[in-house]
Amino acid sequence: MKNSIFDLFLATLFASTTSKLKETMFTHETKIRVRYAETDKMGYLYYGHYPKFYEIGRVEAMRDLGIRYLDLEEKYQVMMPVMSLNMRFVRPAYYDDLLTLKTIIRKLPGETITYHHEMYREDGTLLNGGSVKLCFVNMKNDETIAVPTVLMDKLDPFFTI
Amino acid sequence: MKNSIFDLFLATLFASTTSKLKETMFTHETKIRVRYAETDKMGYLYYGHYPKFYEIGRVEAMRDLGIRYLDLEEKYQVMMPVMSLNMRFVRPAYYDDLLTLKTIIRKLPGETITYHHEMYREDGTLLNGGSVKLCFVNMKNDETIAVPTVLMDKLDPFFTI
Amino acid sequence: MKNSIFDLFLATLFASTTSKLKETMFTHETKIRVRYAETDKMGYLYYGHYPKFYEIGRVEAMRDLGIRYLDLEEKYQVMMPVMSLNMRFVRPAYYDDLLTLKTIIRKLPGETITYHHEMYREDGTLLNGGSVKLCFVNMKNDETIAVPTVLMDKLDPFFTI
Amino acid sequence: MKNSIFDLFLATLFASTTSKLKETMFTHETKIRVRYAETDKMGYLYYGHYPKFYEIGRVEAMRDLGIRYLDLEEKYQVMMPVMSLNMRFVRPAYYDDLLTLKTIIRKLPGETITYHHEMYREDGTLLNGGSVKLCFVNMKNDETIAVPTVLMDKLDPFFTI
Repeated sequence: MKNSIFDLFLATLFASTTSKLKETMFTHETKIRVRYAETDKMGYLYYGHYPKFYEIGRVEAMRDLGIRYLDLEEKYQVMMPVMSLNMRFVRPAYYDDLLTLKTIIRKLPGETITYHHEMYREDGTLLNGGSVKLCFVNMKNDETIAVPTVLMDKLDPFFTI
Repeated sequence: MKNSIFDLFLATLFASTTSKLKETMFTHETKIRVRYAETDKMGYLYYGHYPKFYEIGRVEAMRDLGIRYLDLEEKYQVMMPVMSLNMRFVRPAYYDDLLTLKTIIRKLPGETITYHHEMYREDGTLLNGGSVKLCFVNMKNDETIAVPTVLMDKLDPFFTI
Repeated sequence: MKNSIFDLFLATLFASTTSKLKETMFTHETKIRVRYAETDKMGYLYYGHYPKFYEIGRVEAMRDLGIRYLDLEEKYQVMMPVMSLNMRFVRPAYYDDLLTLKTIIRKLPGETITYHHEMYREDGTLLNGGSVKLCFVNMKNDETIAVPTVLMDKLDPFFTI
Repeated sequence: MKNSIFDLFLATLFASTTSKLKETMFTHETKIRVRYAETDKMGYLYYGHYPKFYEIGRVEAMRDLGIRYLDLEEKYQVMMPVMSLNMRFVRPAYYDDLLTLKTIIRKLPGETITYHHEMYREDGTLLNGGSVKLCFVNMKNDETIAVPTVLMDKLDPFFTI
């Protein structure tokens, strides 16, 4: 799609998202194939499927860190409900595209954790970017808690110089 | 869920969303039932289903205005891709909840249109709020255009005093 | 779509599904709007969304009988996992179609219950038909049980002459 | 779930599905991770997500054969709508399970093609089995056609002794 609005998007809105590499952060990449089930009559990947893709990004990022989200729930009795979601759609993704989903943790979690995401087409074109903020809930009493030690310990090394 | 973070959410984040009634805006309400398909193992309405619900809100708001989105595509050759999506999750929705989805257009569209959404439980509790910004694309040449007259004419009366 | 195979379908496969009205059975109808989220790049309602629609059919059929499925789980500690699913696609459904979903219980449940479904376009054309067989599981010990009395009592009057 | 009905299932219903290895057929395997988005409040993989998984199975089976389904649509103007779907649920799949999806073509396609599917847990337990029948439609005139040569040529070697 050639159009001025989307180009302006590209130039400005992702200034903050795709800023120069910080020295202290955690980055993870995973591949996701766009399925027929996820296209819409416009021929695009329907916008409502991106949150599920972001979920894949953060869960695989955690697995890469050595933490299985399932264990967090079952062993540590901690669940992570989503507090907010923001996304910008720069260019559409199409059926059978093999997307690269980049998941970034920019700062150490405290009461909440924020995952930043960027989705790229195979040729490296940025398609979508956004972030999800989650909190930590003790499943035994349904109360919010600070980031569990098990997660903090894994992330800490990425944020010390 | 009784917890300080979500309560803070309630107190501050929706200050802008649920501000005092403006005299010039368009408001629409529709009901949506949470289905088993849409719950997750936490027992909550999964966060990735809200964008589909927002779609229902804006399409039904347009139908209420006298515009069928299908006609916009088929008769006027205009499609409306999503540019950005923002949502905040205040409290979870559960299986079989009959939600009220409020869809609000706060200002007349120009190059883009923004729909604001608020979701309420049957007892009136606010569960979720957010917004979606869309642009208008001429399907014949894939270029962005300003808001079509057919839509502007229907909205204009709501924004004149 | 004009084609011999689908016409053959219409003539033969639904012989059993749309047979002459039996005197003793329970029938329910509900309306479902096809959403953009549910279309695919072919422009059709994606085949993977029909099971969710069948769920809506059987839950609304039960509500019509006076039984809220949520109560079955919460009050009676009975859940109903799906054992099998069969569906035939006769003609495609399209975006914004307002479908009529007919849900039929043809015989009194025992160890299992079978819901039959038929989906019609607004002009009465048959689009899809199928059935879902479910069993009853006692959530306290995870064992299968026979149909709960609370459901049997509601259904029985429809099957006595 | 320990229960007699499901065990009976295991013993009888899959007799046809998991029969002894035929000498002439095409078999493909792919891995699918169950996501939070796909679980329901029962904690199971919701039954309505299996059709999407079957889609992944048949598309990856075709890719393995050297045919990209996207090319079939774009280069050959042939699309493959689903005619029927049958599935049996033997045991539930859970969050984060890494399932093995086996896709089998048992006989050469003619007017239609049938894919058989079996889903296994990591320990080899059979969870689900089923089949999908599709036909071939010429996208230029919307009429059904016989299996395209491009697909037949790839499959034929697997069915000659």
